[in-house]
Amino acid sequence: MAGLSPYSKKHKVTVIGSGNWGSSISKMVAENTAAHPELFEKEVNMWVYEEKIEIPKSSKHYRESSPLCKGEQNLTEIINQLHENIKYLPDITLPDNLRANPSLVDSVKDSSILVFNLPHQFISGVCKSLKGHILPYARGISCIKGVHVDEEGVSLFSETIGKQLGIYCGALSGANIASEVAKELYSETTVAYDPPHMDSKAPTPQTGSPSSSAVNLSEFKHKDSSGNLSKVKLRPMPSEFPPVDHSLLKTLFHRPYFHVRVVDDVAGVSLGGALKNIVALAAGYVDGLGWGDNAKAAVMRVGLLEMVKFGTTFFSHSVNAETFTVESAGVADLITSCSGGRNFRCAKYSVERKLPIEEVEKQELNGQKLQGTLTAVEVNNFLKKQGLEDEYPLFTAVNSILKGEAKVEDIPSLIEPK
Amino acid sequence: MAGLSPYSKKHKVTVIGSGNWGSSISKMVAENTAAHPELFEKEVNMWVYEEKIEIPKSSKHYRESSPLCKGEQNLTEIINQLHENIKYLPDITLPDNLRANPSLVDSVKDSSILVFNLPHQFISGVCKSLKGHILPYARGISCIKGVHVDEEGVSLFSETIGKQLGIYCGALSGANIASEVAKELYSETTVAYDPPHMDSKAPTPQTGSPSSSAVNLSEFKHKDSSGNLSKVKLRPMPSEFPPVDHSLLKTLFHRPYFHVRVVDDVAGVSLGGALKNIVALAAGYVDGLGWGDNAKAAVMRVGLLEMVKFGTTFFSHSVNAETFTVESAGVADLITSCSGGRNFRCAKYSVERKLPIEEVEKQELNGQKLQGTLTAVEVNNFLKKQGLEDEYPLFTAVNSILKGEAKVEDIPSLIEPK
Repeated sequence: MAGLSPYSKKHKVTVIGSGNWGSSISKMVAENTAAHPELFEKEVNMWVYEEKIEIPKSSKHYRESSPLCKGEQNLTEIINQLHENIKYLPDITLPDNLRANPSLVDSVKDSSILVFNLPHQFISGVCKSLKGHILPYARGISCIKGVHVDEEGVSLFSETIGKQLGIYCGALSGANIASEVAKELYSETTVAYDPPHMDSKAPTPQTGSPSSSAVNLSEFKHKDSSGNLSKVKLRPMPSEFPPVDHSLLKTLFHRPYFHVRVVDDVAGVSLGGALKNIVALAAGYVDGLGWGDNAKAAVMRVGLLEMVKFGTTFFSHSVNAETFTVESAGVADLITSCSGGRNFRCAKYSVERKLPIEEVEKQELNGQKLQGTLTAVEVNNFLKKQGLEDEYPLFTAVNSILKGEAKVEDIPSLIEPK
Repeated sequence: MAGLSPYSKKHKVTVIGSGNWGSSISKMVAENTAAHPELFEKEVNMWVYEEKIEIPKSSKHYRESSPLCKGEQNLTEIINQLHENIKYLPDITLPDNLRANPSLVDSVKDSSILVFNLPHQFISGVCKSLKGHILPYARGISCIKGVHVDEEGVSLFSETIGKQLGIYCGALSGANIASEVAKELYSETTVAYDPPHMDSKAPTPQTGSPSSSAVNLSEFKHKDSSGNLSKVKLRPMPSEFPPVDHSLLKTLFHRPYFHVRVVDDVAGVSLGGALKNIVALAAGYVDGLGWGDNAKAAVMRVGLLEMVKFGTTFFSHSVNAETFTVESAGVADLITSCSGGRNFRCAKYSVERKLPIEEVEKQELNGQKLQGTLTAVEVNNFLKKQGLEDEYPLFTAVNSILKGEAKVEDIPSLIEPK
């Protein structure tokens, strides 16, 4: 069945989530599964939270005679017939081999690779519904930006998923504004994947179907930023499948317009996507003062150093400084976010308009919330508890400005090296 | 004389050059010598290439009764009376203790610290005139951006100065648009200084004036990018002076609005200021296509990696990757240059207007030349000779685009990792 492949089975891939980034990732994954039949099943499932949608008469898709245009229809139906997610990624044609599926459980059936791409507040509920319905040896990749921070520590969404489902989950993050990626404008991303060394060492299952193999369980220890260990029992990928390694993941995500680098550092890649938002606020503040390009670059550089320090201090066993300084999930994502991202813009406007940032948030974001202000406060609470506020003067300055305890003009003196 | 200082002598500082950056640096140096009488003579000389200037009637400085406003006057005279370089740094007040001096030889008399800040084409002539007239134990800092590249190798301006004058010369570079620094808008810079370990080990001169001490000469070996060694005999700084070290240099340049980090890596700091211009062209090209922020950040990231590779390959004995990834002279200067620097802008316009970049250069730069196009060609000639063009796909792509051998749209495929 697998042509020239030495493996008798192929990976089936499901993308869980169908917002603008979820739909963009699904498009690329489906392009790649079609291009690599030796590794992947062609059809890719995309789980869609079902909604009723009416195609308006003004739409280019409106056909009076079409049953799809008679009142409200299921979003999945529309996506599968029009090959377009008209609600969350309009005007982008999705591949024929991408199938929108409204059933979470059905969408993951027989899938050995699960790509998570949904708002972080839904992770827990989705994992609860999936539990017991996925292949026990499946592997995950989380495209969910950011991390969870509270006073006790920092936890990665990939780890939350991994622990809840009992699987290994890596991460994908980078300088990826979804609308640009969907239009096939050139960009890069970073995939991080570093499962315990188990699959390759595990003896080949001797009998039965792969899912019935109960041998070769491996304990995978998650260590969070507080140093707490939690153990997840992992099953090896059956040897009938091509190994899920850096090369396979690059093949799954890389496109001529979407260049992928695969690294080991899951924590660094995840932290990059969260901490950059604090730095983007600082860059927006000084830009709002009209201080020019030197000042903005200086704040970004100081912020990048604090990102490196945070990662290598609290995830010293896994984080590599280079993830921040040379990967797309680090320096490039920081640059994009400080060019015109929403955290940068709202901070800038708050200075220009002399308004609290919460006011600007209301004016500009149409009910959506800024990630950076939340992360800045959470990270500050965590650092305060560790007694390390002073070691992160820019992060601390942003928090002080948000609380009205410091002025934007104070940033240079607050971050001045002693 | 030196108050509480344990040293009987203080450093006299001269800035050689008085363009907009030279005048800005002179201003800060003079502010610092005044603030630190324990280390420095208060008065700072700034060598000015003498010109005749007429203060126009429309100037705020015009006073009908003033002799300074009677026809053409010497620029040095005007600077010293008005405390403003009305030609090259208008509207910025210079400190009273900064003295414009039209005589190169007189300006460096008794100066133990020489700060070079002039267009690179004048280095050789100026050094020829200075030879034999400087203190033999003087130390230099070059604020001249860039490096000299030809087929044979890369040489640093700081080394050219050091060799010609027989002194040690460090470098200063960073994300420093002069007009912003002059207005005291916050920025950062990097000073690089790594003289041979001689001054501290040298025995204290026993007799005579410091300049007559012929003992303790130390051979300082310069190794250029081709691996050629050239030797400069250096004299130690007499022990009557405070040692010229990282701390003293920080004191000389650091201001509340101009934060200084001092590092050892002179080659890295110098290369950063040159190679970033090639990357800025690439960033301008993709921005000109309207490819968005992802693409621009991707090109900058790939360029940063090639800068690191170039530095650590051809200056492996001295260059530290971190100079590029975490210092102002590296990543921050790159960010500033790709935000609105002239190389970025001209490349962007050349795509938008469908014109060769030389045409845009003529339209936009009023007779000035782009540094990036020259550096891109020189670096390419050097890499070609080394047989290493393929190892630097972005640098090579920029050169190919400049030569009309590739299209801007080809950049993603030209830099796609294999």
